[in-house]
Amino acid sequence: MNHRLNQQLAFLFEVDKMKTVLRRTLLVDKSRHENSAEHSWHFALMAVTFFEYNQLEGVDLNRVIRMALVHDVVEIYAGDTFAYDIEGNKEKEQREQLAADKLFSLLPDDQAKEFRGLWEEFDEMKTPDAIYATAIDRLQPFLNNSVTSGHSWAKHNVTLPQVYDRMDPVRVATPVLWEHVEDVITKALEKGYIVY
Amino acid sequence: MNHRLNQQLAFLFEVDKMKTVLRRTLLVDKSRHENSAEHSWHFALMAVTFFEYNQLEGVDLNRVIRMALVHDVVEIYAGDTFAYDIEGNKEKEQREQLAADKLFSLLPDDQAKEFRGLWEEFDEMKTPDAIYATAIDRLQPFLNNSVTSGHSWAKHNVTLPQVYDRMDPVRVATPVLWEHVEDVITKALEKGYIVY
Repeated sequence: MNHRLNQQLAFLFEVDKMKTVLRRTLLVDKSRHENSAEHSWHFALMAVTFFEYNQLEGVDLNRVIRMALVHDVVEIYAGDTFAYDIEGNKEKEQREQLAADKLFSLLPDDQAKEFRGLWEEFDEMKTPDAIYATAIDRLQPFLNNSVTSGHSWAKHNVTLPQVYDRMDPVRVATPVLWEHVEDVITKALEKGYIVY
Repeated sequence: MNHRLNQQLAFLFEVDKMKTVLRRTLLVDKSRHENSAEHSWHFALMAVTFFEYNQLEGVDLNRVIRMALVHDVVEIYAGDTFAYDIEGNKEKEQREQLAADKLFSLLPDDQAKEFRGLWEEFDEMKTPDAIYATAIDRLQPFLNNSVTSGHSWAKHNVTLPQVYDRMDPVRVATPVLWEHVEDVITKALEKGYIVY
């Protein structure tokens, strides 16, 4: 059988594990935690829906959507590191580079390069595509938090400076959405879901 | 607050329910059934990975990916109709049209038209984009079945003519992948997962 196809199948079966990597965010109905495959889909659809609010020059939405599809795949080995986990994030880069070596090497070289390139570009958050993608990647759990009694903020005692820092790409890329973020933060502070 | 943004938020919160629509397919690790949000993500990533096998003229992969993101959203009201459920599929079209009226009307008119257009084009399976998209939409659960002891075929006594009919878009769009489909079917017949 076709060796190249076997490599692609191995990758596509392996990333099925994304469906079992749990995040801190709840579903809107609060029934359970969201997983990374669902998050990636919601992020991609949100990137399309909110693209009119992007104010960065030269963003290619088609590349952003592909970033959304692969931005979390290394988590199948490296785990999801909670955004506000200071210790976990210190080692995150090394852990994810090793995971990327293992995962992307399942693919034929040209596709390994393409997918890893998108993942690294996203992670470095320097290009306009990566900044818009990061804004939406962060907005998706933020919005789910906004309708689930601030679940992951409250549970992990997240502070206002942490949320401002985390959500800054939304301010940079999509000022209209940033206004909504500020409204949500104000209400979350009033309710005590986010602490000063 | 911005009325247009409120409409978009209502849609994005509503489609969160995709994460709770269960399909007949199992995850690769057999731990549980897959849901429609996870399926949509896996389908989109598979459409990128396998695009080199497409032989139809004029397929725009970027449109196919967007179809993947929205192709199942009406299921949040209409439910997932199992591919091999004859009775369920008779009423599927009417049920889904009503669901589409309800769901897409949450969006601003221009986006409702855009997303519904992609969904309808996919469903009609006439354009090259929709045929390639359908091939991959059907291949994703087929592949998961191929590594989970033919779970949904065996459980629902699926027959060889049904599988051939269901998988025909793969033959049309991606002959190399069709060879793999035929290999899987041959083995599934030997094991009794698919019946004659």
